[in-house]
Amino acid sequence: MTSDKILLGHGSGGKLSHDLIKDIFVKHFNNPLLNSCTDSALLDIDSKNLAFTTDSYVVDPVFFPGGNIGHLAVCGTVNDLAVSGATPLYLTSSFIIEEGFPVKDLEQVVMSMAKEAEKAGVKIVAGDTKVVDRGKCDKVFINTSGIGILEKGRINISYGSDIKAGDKILINGFIGDHGIAVMCARNELQFSSDIKSDCACLNGLISGVLEETDNVRFMRDATRGGVVTVLCELAETNDIGIELDEDNIPVRENVRGMCEVLGYDPLYVANEGKVVMVVPADEADMTLKKMRQDDLGRDSAIIGQVVDEYKGKVFMNTGIGGRRIVDMLAGEQLPRIC
Amino acid sequence: MTSDKILLGHGSGGKLSHDLIKDIFVKHFNNPLLNSCTDSALLDIDSKNLAFTTDSYVVDPVFFPGGNIGHLAVCGTVNDLAVSGATPLYLTSSFIIEEGFPVKDLEQVVMSMAKEAEKAGVKIVAGDTKVVDRGKCDKVFINTSGIGILEKGRINISYGSDIKAGDKILINGFIGDHGIAVMCARNELQFSSDIKSDCACLNGLISGVLEETDNVRFMRDATRGGVVTVLCELAETNDIGIELDEDNIPVRENVRGMCEVLGYDPLYVANEGKVVMVVPADEADMTLKKMRQDDLGRDSAIIGQVVDEYKGKVFMNTGIGGRRIVDMLAGEQLPRIC
Repeated sequence: MTSDKILLGHGSGGKLSHDLIKDIFVKHFNNPLLNSCTDSALLDIDSKNLAFTTDSYVVDPVFFPGGNIGHLAVCGTVNDLAVSGATPLYLTSSFIIEEGFPVKDLEQVVMSMAKEAEKAGVKIVAGDTKVVDRGKCDKVFINTSGIGILEKGRINISYGSDIKAGDKILINGFIGDHGIAVMCARNELQFSSDIKSDCACLNGLISGVLEETDNVRFMRDATRGGVVTVLCELAETNDIGIELDEDNIPVRENVRGMCEVLGYDPLYVANEGKVVMVVPADEADMTLKKMRQDDLGRDSAIIGQVVDEYKGKVFMNTGIGGRRIVDMLAGEQLPRIC
Repeated sequence: MTSDKILLGHGSGGKLSHDLIKDIFVKHFNNPLLNSCTDSALLDIDSKNLAFTTDSYVVDPVFFPGGNIGHLAVCGTVNDLAVSGATPLYLTSSFIIEEGFPVKDLEQVVMSMAKEAEKAGVKIVAGDTKVVDRGKCDKVFINTSGIGILEKGRINISYGSDIKAGDKILINGFIGDHGIAVMCARNELQFSSDIKSDCACLNGLISGVLEETDNVRFMRDATRGGVVTVLCELAETNDIGIELDEDNIPVRENVRGMCEVLGYDPLYVANEGKVVMVVPADEADMTLKKMRQDDLGRDSAIIGQVVDEYKGKVFMNTGIGGRRIVDMLAGEQLPRIC
């Protein structure tokens, strides 16, 4: 650890988070299941494979265009299971609530969770509630943990260990919507925009693709740290080069505009309904077609490929004909985005 | 809900918590697995029974005599699985950390978790870290979720549905230590005492008893709301009467003294290493003997019995020869005790 105090950047999903996980959590909890740092732990219980995952949500504000913290808490955990190749089955939900929080707001959050869980076909089966004094947390924080069944053949999807040069990289639509929607909704920013969070459960879209092909080589949802962080981690872990084509990455005009105003790069902005997929080149078009059949994949695109050069790195062919290395997020860009 | 704002009492584990769970969570998440309100959800995954549980920990202070928030987070979740009759296997850990929290304190918390997990024979297999701005949480909050394998014959232990009049109620030692140790450690109270939290993983003690007998009819760890809350819920759910013998309930002299000073009743004070067990009368002595063989059960005692009268209620034979109804905690006694 390069700092002796926790910094906001330790929660960014970028380099500092990486260090914190490596230097504190993996160091002490040390076991192969955790050390792999996949989105879900992949467990073998009496020859039955399970995926098991957890996430705490501290998004500010609690309600934002396109969703709220409860909706997000269900989608985020369902997606962590789904990108592991698992079928999400059961969630727990644990609330830390600030004294004085309006019960009607809590009920609205809980109703969103119930609705989203039903849509995704998962059940919320256990819970916990803690209340802390006023000023000791900020309105409400939610943890959702989840388990799902994982078919044995899909274990490598989490690791990306079957990836080969030539494989194509796909995404299921526009990036950056969630992060920018939340930023615009913060009270201190006096922006108004029509940008909505992309917050959604992707297990339906993903299972559609997995029914079509056994060759999905990697999936990860691009949340904190954005698409670039997912790809940088993938490149580093598997010592592969990744080439992105800037012109092919779907970014809405209003999101791009707001990113320019705020000084952000959409590639680093959090999504809550976007999965990065890697498939063999000869299955890319078929996969793209399948993704586009799903409501959550209408704007899917092939955004890059795995290459033999630049091992361990991600680089971008820019719109103006240049080429640049893109690196992991160094500090904190958007605190409390999820 | 009788209040339109969240009150501290909604986190007490008592009546208000009960209402919140019923009126908001169970109402909307509505499914039989959750509605049973057991400590762990009991899942059937391809004919394999699993227990699945979650808890968030917000204890104040983070370090207290006999433990810290990390130690507590492992013990609490291991115990929730163990009292379901399950063998705890895997935990997740999710941190919400306040910006500026010392990394060395975090590391100490994490080391305690690792040590306690190893002792209990469980693995921490997935995690998450969020950081919030200074003042938006209080140092560190931890969620641990856990899964364990549950043998089919043990499903009713969580519900207490096999309980019969005449059954004996046992506890594995002194009550109230945790709550009073934490209260004494709070900065605002200028008490010094040698009371230590009883925070410990009970899966070893419990599996010892379960190896000896198939007739454990109920188990629950007596955390927030104390022993009385566990028994009131049990009486209500199963429409049985419960009689407690005050003289037989183990309370340390210093804990009793501090309770008098602070105006608490030890029966309502949180424990983090105490299990309430119900067994048939003719197995009570054998079970007691077995519990006492474990380091965490040396001071085990038979504290009461299930009776035919007072259905749905708990009453106490007091030391001075009287008899009184004991009811669930109404408001908040000790906020942020776990």
